[in-house]
Amino acid sequence: MIIVKIREDMAVLQVIKTRRSIRSFKQEPVPDEDALQILDAARLAPSGGNRQRWKFVYVKASHVVRMIKNCSPGIYGDAAAVIAICLEAEKEAFGRTEYSDVVGIMDVGFAAENILLAAKALGLGGCAIASFNASGVKKVLEIPDGWKPVLLVTLGYPDKEPRVPTKKTLSEVVYLNRFGEKWEGLEGRS
Amino acid sequence: MIIVKIREDMAVLQVIKTRRSIRSFKQEPVPDEDALQILDAARLAPSGGNRQRWKFVYVKASHVVRMIKNCSPGIYGDAAAVIAICLEAEKEAFGRTEYSDVVGIMDVGFAAENILLAAKALGLGGCAIASFNASGVKKVLEIPDGWKPVLLVTLGYPDKEPRVPTKKTLSEVVYLNRFGEKWEGLEGRS
Repeated sequence: MIIVKIREDMAVLQVIKTRRSIRSFKQEPVPDEDALQILDAARLAPSGGNRQRWKFVYVKASHVVRMIKNCSPGIYGDAAAVIAICLEAEKEAFGRTEYSDVVGIMDVGFAAENILLAAKALGLGGCAIASFNASGVKKVLEIPDGWKPVLLVTLGYPDKEPRVPTKKTLSEVVYLNRFGEKWEGLEGRS
Repeated sequence: MIIVKIREDMAVLQVIKTRRSIRSFKQEPVPDEDALQILDAARLAPSGGNRQRWKFVYVKASHVVRMIKNCSPGIYGDAAAVIAICLEAEKEAFGRTEYSDVVGIMDVGFAAENILLAAKALGLGGCAIASFNASGVKKVLEIPDGWKPVLLVTLGYPDKEPRVPTKKTLSEVVYLNRFGEKWEGLEGRS
């Protein structure tokens, strides 16, 4: 067999385009090796000033997953695992200057998207969950003061391919050179 | 020639692992077709409640790029293009409940990471810039009230491969089942 590497861009763009939020899972565990690849992807996300003010609590013990779910109205289905992305408070800035908080939260977004794409690439799936009781999750995961859980990401093998959600078209969300200026010729694209 | 598709996971994880923040660019424009692939990747990012409260202003006119740079202490080098990710204010929630703002900002993070990975896959590069004068950028891009620029992403062909930044190891950022609990055996991994 001759193996020729396909263009990297195709695989990456393909995974970005076909990723779905998965909310229904098979009752199969996530292999540890895949979890570590996914966590490695999270770890390598960019962060403001490369500060990496994060910890990733990987929850696979089923009784802990269940307790997390009980604190999280946003979690549907029985995920095999959950990653709680926690952010460290900055002494001078956290919750005081808008700048710092925005940057930290955006960092969590970068890491979470890497998690979701890596999961998709490995045949897994998941969903970012912002709707949870933070003090409940802090208690369940014994998160100390100075840290807070900002986002949960569920993980598991998709039970079924979910319906494609309605997405705005390129011409609805893209402007050229200034706000409101349409980029000619985008209407037919998507 | 026989083309055999390589495993998708390898390409995606490879791009995630080798992506760098690019701050030094060749003086070459970004092809429109690549820009549209990148913007498509941004458009298809997840968003809280699938609300897609975003617009992507793609700036390629060099005098506008220059004006943006003049408002942005965080921008180094001469990027060929800049994407300004703008978020719509929510009437009932924006700036009032923490929930909504956090979700919108995280959405911007998801979209920005897709932009950076798609750019890398296409041989381009860029850097997420949170340090800019928002009212200056609003003025330059004629962003109306009710919208705000949350993040800028520079784009262009990398001039040189940047030094690999120091990253915390997996064992430094990953806990198992509860905060503070080490996952055995990670020390050697990265």
